[in-house]
Amino acid sequence: MAFLGSRLLPRVCRANGNGLLGSLRLASSKEFVSVEKREDKIAVVSLNRAPVNALNYPLLSELANTFTELEDDRAVKSIIVASNVPGIYSAGLDILEMYQATDESARRFWKSLQDMWLSLYACTKPTVAAINGASPAGGCLIACACDYRVMAESNKYTIGLNETKLSIVAPFWFMDTYVATIGQRSAERALILGSLFSPTDALKIGLVDEVVASDQVMERATAECLQHMKIPNAARVMTKRQVREHIVERFEAGRENDVDMFAAFVLQDSVQAGLGRYLEALKAKSK
Amino acid sequence: MAFLGSRLLPRVCRANGNGLLGSLRLASSKEFVSVEKREDKIAVVSLNRAPVNALNYPLLSELANTFTELEDDRAVKSIIVASNVPGIYSAGLDILEMYQATDESARRFWKSLQDMWLSLYACTKPTVAAINGASPAGGCLIACACDYRVMAESNKYTIGLNETKLSIVAPFWFMDTYVATIGQRSAERALILGSLFSPTDALKIGLVDEVVASDQVMERATAECLQHMKIPNAARVMTKRQVREHIVERFEAGRENDVDMFAAFVLQDSVQAGLGRYLEALKAKSK
Amino acid sequence: MAFLGSRLLPRVCRANGNGLLGSLRLASSKEFVSVEKREDKIAVVSLNRAPVNALNYPLLSELANTFTELEDDRAVKSIIVASNVPGIYSAGLDILEMYQATDESARRFWKSLQDMWLSLYACTKPTVAAINGASPAGGCLIACACDYRVMAESNKYTIGLNETKLSIVAPFWFMDTYVATIGQRSAERALILGSLFSPTDALKIGLVDEVVASDQVMERATAECLQHMKIPNAARVMTKRQVREHIVERFEAGRENDVDMFAAFVLQDSVQAGLGRYLEALKAKSK
Repeated sequence: MAFLGSRLLPRVCRANGNGLLGSLRLASSKEFVSVEKREDKIAVVSLNRAPVNALNYPLLSELANTFTELEDDRAVKSIIVASNVPGIYSAGLDILEMYQATDESARRFWKSLQDMWLSLYACTKPTVAAINGASPAGGCLIACACDYRVMAESNKYTIGLNETKLSIVAPFWFMDTYVATIGQRSAERALILGSLFSPTDALKIGLVDEVVASDQVMERATAECLQHMKIPNAARVMTKRQVREHIVERFEAGRENDVDMFAAFVLQDSVQAGLGRYLEALKAKSK
Repeated sequence: MAFLGSRLLPRVCRANGNGLLGSLRLASSKEFVSVEKREDKIAVVSLNRAPVNALNYPLLSELANTFTELEDDRAVKSIIVASNVPGIYSAGLDILEMYQATDESARRFWKSLQDMWLSLYACTKPTVAAINGASPAGGCLIACACDYRVMAESNKYTIGLNETKLSIVAPFWFMDTYVATIGQRSAERALILGSLFSPTDALKIGLVDEVVASDQVMERATAECLQHMKIPNAARVMTKRQVREHIVERFEAGRENDVDMFAAFVLQDSVQAGLGRYLEALKAKSK
Repeated sequence: MAFLGSRLLPRVCRANGNGLLGSLRLASSKEFVSVEKREDKIAVVSLNRAPVNALNYPLLSELANTFTELEDDRAVKSIIVASNVPGIYSAGLDILEMYQATDESARRFWKSLQDMWLSLYACTKPTVAAINGASPAGGCLIACACDYRVMAESNKYTIGLNETKLSIVAPFWFMDTYVATIGQRSAERALILGSLFSPTDALKIGLVDEVVASDQVMERATAECLQHMKIPNAARVMTKRQVREHIVERFEAGRENDVDMFAAFVLQDSVQAGLGRYLEALKAKSK
């Protein structure tokens, strides 16, 4: 098991827990995503790929499909995006999707990432990230694609687009999402330095909207959903669409080129060699 | 008398007062707008349509004409936009302009709203909103179109684009103005939830620039005008134009389509039925 | 010696000191710019045109050339932009480049300003402004083009784009840089009023990132450079490029027209007469 950002995660991530959300009654289930449709009409979508919810093609596809299905599910009025893995929201992209990739597999992987993001960012239902664990890179992207972010207070958890520290570059639509959340200046420095923020610092720069005790995260996320659900629906949907439209349009205009660039980047010999060394180092470390 | 947002306004709004600004010497007068050209070369434009300054076609046209006239009036160096109605800045758009509208009347109404906004937002003279009362929806738009906002401290007054709560959608140029004032992230959540902010909260997110005691509002608005009037005029004018240009350009590019969309929206049977029920409920309430 | 903004500078500026940075070992030298290539692989570029580092064609050209050379210098990993003149970062554009200018000289001057900005703003190496003195107008532009700004605490120093107060208009790319740094709303008012901020106020609105004692400025700027230098380089470079790309693209699209506008503006009889009066007043004052 290898994943981008592994060395940045707290040790707890590597332990496989029973799942903080183990008591949930699962209404539907996929391999790596669990969906609970609750009586309050809120669906809780939980990433469920121990040990660190590394985002591989199957997990991303399941997420994209889940968000698309819930979009059309009249019984669901709001979505909370959470994790079943204790101490981890998501560690980001799975490096094994990049190592020894073919042009075809690299493109398939990247498209699934794009689809996941778009199905969440443009979701017409209220979406809230319940961030009860570390949330670097792709984990931060998922959180920023929601309407609201509640994070657990912990000195072990951090959140941020830390791609540069991992020698990679966040694609333009990660950056656009980040800028939309924390503004141009904060995003610029955080992206360049690959900054990971403590929950308290993330709150200060507006990267998360609330920081609460770990056992309060789901309750607060639920409260935010209920607040959105009180708003007349058609107006809320059209307003959300309008206010995010320029970012979705930029994404649509650039998405094909973005796939080309990713495939060209990842298939370079030098990048493959670097990934190989990285994986060797991880293996050596874990012995 | 009916208006969007009526149920959100403090009770004081429904009382017809003598006018806080009743002592002003009026230099020119229209039906729903009073203009005082003061000796300090500041023109005070006051909305004057009791009980709540609901923005109907005549009021909006008069405002647009007033701002355009003042633009060309060499004796006027700055404009304060205020209200003659105690406790109310403006309650927003007049719903009677939408109920049983014809295609022609709907278009005329919406164009007058566009003209009012453009004549204020692109006004080359310094403009300051003296917000001495509730300022939801269209009231907030007027305030945000000015260069500076001074609001009276009061636990009865709120300000914000609360359109979603009224089942309507703020047009794109309302949203652009809001984003330019408080930033993408704050605007996004406030627009989706239709948030109304207390003066103190509005100050925190930058929706207003100053909160002072009610009897200090005009004095502080005047001070801000005088500060702008000290700046070499040609440079100030060109700078204001340049820094707002991208928003004016987006508006110009979309304004015709915006009228089409409004007319198509408001003339739908379902919308007319909803407006009818809303007006019935208001009547029942006021008995 | 005349310069825009002279009357706004603290008295200390007019004294010619020994140079706070006089102990630097100069690795290369030009007429108005000194470059120290330090052992830590950080190049310190210091403006060196007493009494106020007024930005004339030679100084701007030397700066542009310096940044371009350092871009290609493999021994240099980061750049600090500082001043050799005590109490002054830079007083901004040299008014003598505008007075009695020809079309050719005006264009040459303005292009050198554009080149200087672009070579710094788009520099792929980490750049930090060590602001140990007054930094109005063009001085503020240089600071904002860097990745990070450290300013000395002092009640004598201010920073800001104060062009309107000098009867001129900041070009669109000054404004874009300002908006990217402090956001649309803060930039709008600061540009219109030509605001100059104390170090403390500049910190509050995000115009500078750190305010420290004067003798700590270089140390803190160095620390920021070292932080950037730890980031994998290719990823850092591509990220910086990507996140600033929209501003560079707007600049490229408008730069020719910007030169035309400047030349047309400055060669007007009325502007020349104004500049003449301004220079006379400065002369009278200095007697």
